[in-house]
Formats: sequence, structure tokens, C-alpha cells
Amino acid sequence: MEAGDVGSVEKRLADIGKQLPPVKPPVANYLGCKRSRDILHVSARVSPECGQVGTELDLGAARDTAKNALLDILAIVKDGIGSLDRIVSVEKLAGFVRSSPSFIEQPKVIDGASDLLVSLFGENGRHSRTATGVAQLPYGAAVQLEMVLRLGSGE
Amino acid sequence: MEAGDVGSVEKRLADIGKQLPPVKPPVANYLGCKRSRDILHVSARVSPECGQVGTELDLGAARDTAKNALLDILAIVKDGIGSLDRIVSVEKLAGFVRSSPSFIEQPKVIDGASDLLVSLFGENGRHSRTATGVAQLPYGAAVQLEMVLRLGSGE
Amino acid sequence: MEAGDVGSVEKRLADIGKQLPPVKPPVANYLGCKRSRDILHVSARVSPECGQVGTELDLGAARDTAKNALLDILAIVKDGIGSLDRIVSVEKLAGFVRSSPSFIEQPKVIDGASDLLVSLFGENGRHSRTATGVAQLPYGAAVQLEMVLRLGSGE
Repeated sequence: MEAGDVGSVEKRLADIGKQLPPVKPPVANYLGCKRSRDILHVSARVSPECGQVGTELDLGAARDTAKNALLDILAIVKDGIGSLDRIVSVEKLAGFVRSSPSFIEQPKVIDGASDLLVSLFGENGRHSRTATGVAQLPYGAAVQLEMVLRLGSGE
Repeated sequence: MEAGDVGSVEKRLADIGKQLPPVKPPVANYLGCKRSRDILHVSARVSPECGQVGTELDLGAARDTAKNALLDILAIVKDGIGSLDRIVSVEKLAGFVRSSPSFIEQPKVIDGASDLLVSLFGENGRHSRTATGVAQLPYGAAVQLEMVLRLGSGE
Repeated sequence: MEAGDVGSVEKRLADIGKQLPPVKPPVANYLGCKRSRDILHVSARVSPECGQVGTELDLGAARDTAKNALLDILAIVKDGIGSLDRIVSVEKLAGFVRSSPSFIEQPKVIDGASDLLVSLFGENGRHSRTATGVAQLPYGAAVQLEMVLRLGSGE
């Protein structure tokens, strides 16, 4: 697949009215993703939206934010491995939600990202997961996501 | 091994007066565990007990809570792979403790789960670990655990 | 390599005026690191320095603290596998920063550790990463780090 080609995962993304955003390079001294044989560790990425969930963002807005954070991560992954079609399986998704003291629905927030993964990758997009609450996130972001993916050959 | 059979790990569990609780399905759009070759990523699971550790739960209660969260996770793992006897090694345990601002003994809380893993799996149950403190957890839980396991063949 | 030998990674450490500290054993019931084939899961380790970043420690001090936490972890890794020269690649670094409510520069804090990894291991030391903020850490520490490493053969 040539750089710039739109693969079948990106076509499914277009079918649901979304597209990959421009790649945002890492903000510090790390790689967007790192490959170890067929495993790709994808670095944590904060959502473009800031704010505390439960006060500044409600559940619906936070869920959309998780979806946007996932799109940012997928853009980084495509940049790193050439095509999202090389993803064989989503092994793990971890999500941190910047939560007000009384906000307890972190799993429903991270479902914004999980639902999108299943839409794009089908059964292979179903994953193990961690969704947890924290008081602070880098740059005041509302959500932070990281992933472990498995890749096929085809390099 | 037939579904419903009690394996040797479960016998050791019975020997210490415990048993696997009923399986609690994931509360959102994720899998209880996901296998990638011989590695099993086990999703984070919150403890059945709620409350802030350091104020609403003391160290002893929190440690018991970690043990209960582990039992819940092991029930999910058995449901996913058929028998706990297929676990060759516990690679990693991560534990989040919902902590009061002054509570700093998260490692001793998570020992509740670590001690049980070593009781059940012996030397192979000894693991790398993260124990950290957070201000919030899903559904107000006191403890949240996740694991990485290695499985043998024998499917 | 004999125990006690100083390998090339430790020589690079000496070149930048640093050395491995004495090994601090795990504070609870877990292993400092656990090997699964060629993957080494390194347990989370808190920094020797305590305090809240953003109030008790500024960015510069916190970054130095992350570096010190990494040195502690590398001492544990050497103790576990015999020589740091067996590390083929740093797959993942995760860092938790005990943050004041308004502190948002966790990535710059964890760069203290990331920069040192790149100094020591070159291109192979570049890694995927998570840097997040939490309100509490074990024993009041300022920073907590964990890693996933890939090892070469040569045992």
C-alpha cells in the first residue's frame, strides 16, 4: 500500500462520517508508537478537548472526546505503520478520565473509543480494557488513551 | 477439561476457604479478557466494595477488598479460557487504589491480591506489579485490578 | 558477563557522571521484574524523593526525580538479568506524577527518564510512553515509573 492510499479501515471511517485528523507529533521525548515483533505499543495521547469530566464536560461530551482522542491515535498509528489495515487485533485499550470527585462513569466515557474501535475493526476490534479516573491529566485534557495492537505481516 | 470441572487451582482456592464468585460481565463495550497467542490481557475490574481508602476503608479492609477484586477477575478468566489451570504464569498485576489525600500504603493494599496469587499459583504466581493511588475509580469502587497472564497450550 | 562486571551501558552512565544506586528490594509481595520469553515487565518503582509536583517540587526538580527513579529501576533490572547490556529495546515507559490540581506538565517531568534512556540505549532506547497525573502515590513519592523491555538472548 502506497503512502496516502486510503485503506478499508479508513473507508469504514468515512462511511460513518469521520476521517483521520492531521498527525500531532509527540509533545516530548517519546515515539508515537513502538513495534516489537507483531506487537505495537501505542503511546498515550491526550484528547484535544480539555476540562474536568463531571463539571466542565458531561458524559455525552466526554464520550465524544474519547472518540476524538482515538482518531488522533489512529492517525499516529497510520503514520507509524503505513496503513490501519495492518492492524490484526486490538489487544488492549487503556483510558484515563480527568474526573470530578463525584464522577464515577469512566467506563461509559471510554466506550466512546471502544465503540469506534468495534465499528472499524469488527470482532477483532473488541479488546481488553482499563478505564480509570484521575484528578489531573497532561495539559488539562479531559481524556487520555493508550493501546496495544497486534499487527499482521505485509511489510 | 469440561466446563464446570474444578481444576487444581480451584482446589487450592477451596483449601483456603474461598471460591470463585459468579461471573460479572463487563459493564461496558469491552471483553473480560483478550488472548494474543499465549498472552492473556485481563481487563481492569473494580472491587465489589466501594469507598475511599484511608477514610471509609482502613488498610485491612482495603486489602480484603483487593482479594475480592482478584476473585472476581479469576472468575472472568476461567469463564474466558475454561480453566485456571491453563495459567502458566502471572506476568503483571496493576492495582489502582482510590485513596484519601494522605493515604500512602497502596502497595500493602494490593498485597491482598498478590498474596492470593502466590497462594494459588506458587512461584509462577509471583509477578511484576504496579500499585498506585487515584482520587476516583469507576462506580466509586475502592480498588481496581488488571493483569497480564501467560497461558500454556492445551486448548 | 560475570556478576559485578561493568557493561557498556554502565560505562555510558559513568560518562555522564552517574552510576547505578544500590538495589532497593520490592517493598511488598512482588518481583522487581518478571521475564516472559524475551519480554521483561519491570515493576513500578517510586522515586526516592517525595512531594507534590507543582507545589513542593517544581518542574526541574521533578524531572531530576524522574531520572533518579529510572536509575533505581535500572539497578533492579541489572540485579534481575545480570547486565543492562542484555536490553535490546525499551518498548514502553509509563510514568505517574503526583500532581497538584493545576500542574499539567507531566510529559516534561517524565522526559527526565526518557532522555536518560535515549542517552544510554541510543535509538533502541526510544520508546512508547504514558505520562499521567495522579493525586496520590505510594509513600508520598513524587514520581512512579514502570517499563516493558525487550531482551536479547545471551543467557
